Amino acid sequence: MITAETILEAHERIKPFINRTTILTSENLDEMMGCSMFFKCENFQKIGAFKARGAMNAILSFTKTEISNGVATHSSGNHGQAVARAASLLNVKAYVVMPRTAAEIKKQGVLKYGGTIVECEPNQQAREAALREVISKTGAMEIHPFNNYEVIAGQATAAKEFIEDVENLDVIMAPVGGGGLISGTALTVKFFSPSTKVIAGEPEGADDAFRAMQSGKIETSQANTIADGLLTSLGDKTFAIISEHVDKIITVSDKEIVQAMRIIWEQLKIIIEPSSAVPFAAILKLKEKFANKRVGIIFTGGNVDLEKMLGLFEEVKAS
Amino acid sequence: MITAETILEAHERIKPFINRTTILTSENLDEMMGCSMFFKCENFQKIGAFKARGAMNAILSFTKTEISNGVATHSSGNHGQAVARAASLLNVKAYVVMPRTAAEIKKQGVLKYGGTIVECEPNQQAREAALREVISKTGAMEIHPFNNYEVIAGQATAAKEFIEDVENLDVIMAPVGGGGLISGTALTVKFFSPSTKVIAGEPEGADDAFRAMQSGKIETSQANTIADGLLTSLGDKTFAIISEHVDKIITVSDKEIVQAMRIIWEQLKIIIEPSSAVPFAAILKLKEKFANKRVGIIFTGGNVDLEKMLGLFEEVKAS
Repeated sequence: MITAETILEAHERIKPFINRTTILTSENLDEMMGCSMFFKCENFQKIGAFKARGAMNAILSFTKTEISNGVATHSSGNHGQAVARAASLLNVKAYVVMPRTAAEIKKQGVLKYGGTIVECEPNQQAREAALREVISKTGAMEIHPFNNYEVIAGQATAAKEFIEDVENLDVIMAPVGGGGLISGTALTVKFFSPSTKVIAGEPEGADDAFRAMQSGKIETSQANTIADGLLTSLGDKTFAIISEHVDKIITVSDKEIVQAMRIIWEQLKIIIEPSSAVPFAAILKLKEKFANKRVGIIFTGGNVDLEKMLGLFEEVKAS
Repeated sequence: MITAETILEAHERIKPFINRTTILTSENLDEMMGCSMFFKCENFQKIGAFKARGAMNAILSFTKTEISNGVATHSSGNHGQAVARAASLLNVKAYVVMPRTAAEIKKQGVLKYGGTIVECEPNQQAREAALREVISKTGAMEIHPFNNYEVIAGQATAAKEFIEDVENLDVIMAPVGGGGLISGTALTVKFFSPSTKVIAGEPEGADDAFRAMQSGKIETSQANTIADGLLTSLGDKTFAIISEHVDKIITVSDKEIVQAMRIIWEQLKIIIEPSSAVPFAAILKLKEKFANKRVGIIFTGGNVDLEKMLGLFEEVKAS
């Protein structure tokens, strides 16, 4: 299990390898929303996303001998890049199983850090089978994208920096996909800032965590949303932590996500990916619930295809 | 004239009203370019551009009596917003002469701060005539966008923060339009970091400053560039300071500007306007000149029309 000490150790361990990311504020946005918002910019993190934290902590938690044959994961997104980067810093091999349909830019991200891509068919079974095969062939150690305590403890360090840098937050928000970030955030808050509430944002088109909180068991995700970092369902570890420590999950539509993303781009002058915009979309949707509160929002990443994003803006504007 | 003391005083005066903006770095970009770059993000400044500094210093340099009838300027861009904001903070009127063709978003920016827009035909004579008329009618005090020592001293504070926050810069770069920012930057460097070189970037389609340095007199601008913050020519004050204290002006094409802007959006995950991208475009063009140097770049602002930027990216990609 993860204790306060685990998170403190994780932070010390990864500090030399990650950015302590900037926190932005905007008078205009605060006025628009009637609350005080603080935005922790993990889009400025190494590899452009918070995933650099968890992957780094996981790889540093192994002994040198354990990872002498490398590390392996499956990921079509930022976690693959994060593992490849972490492995390259420690001079070990990284095997990243990716669906053959993964965007070229994501593949390039892995290759840039010297990672080896193993292609598979674009479905969950094929991914898992390919990963098992890689591991049995190479002896690499698996680093799961979220259902892994070292990864969760690494992601928890974003909220730790946040509460160190901004006092008296009433609420901290992050999106939920597999649940690594929101689990880590909830644990940090529980240990170091227990009066702060933890609220997750989730796309309606992948609202398995929202449904899981109601049914009391892990639900499958329809995986139908433009927030492509949030397609996966919870794992048993993240489900347990979220059930106990997350106060609320708010769901938002894709249209609300795109509108929120546009406001952030225009007002804060930063590029965030659709997944990052989900918590702010939740505030836009339920403004009165956040009135006069001090709200911290973790922007998860900024790795986007610009043409695709501008297409989304146009679509929503026209609708 | 502007002394070291003038700049120190300006900084103390405006500090409560401006952001001390973040400085970003990127290992990826440094590796791409073979130098160490530091990016001062004035796109995160109040009103989304460095112009908030100069306007604030200018208005605070007047006595209350002097501005009891308000302040006035002509501007189709960020300076108009900056003056309107500064005036609203001091509870005085702001009259902003704008061409009737100015973008709606720019007009909204002025109106948001309670400024009064005076429309005129879109040419220099009409602007100046309209401004003279406003001033004679209202008794407002003029705040010129750049050819004004208080404005220059205000803009100089960006470089002052920069050299306080980053040691041993070999070069500081900024774009040149009317020359307020680069003049202020050059004076700061002269007084507080004399071993640092000052290099300006300028669009080929508005290269009057480049030509002025060769001819030894103010030249007119063709004003044909997508870098719409850099259309104007130098004034006599900025010309004199630039002639003496700027080490070099490098010109770049619109295509180079758009390519540079795209790299910054994608790598740094921030939104900068085309004018902001001009110095980085100069580094891209003359990479070897900056090899192994520590280079500071001031990003001037981030107020863009997203659809228009998309169009620029697509055009350049297709070309």
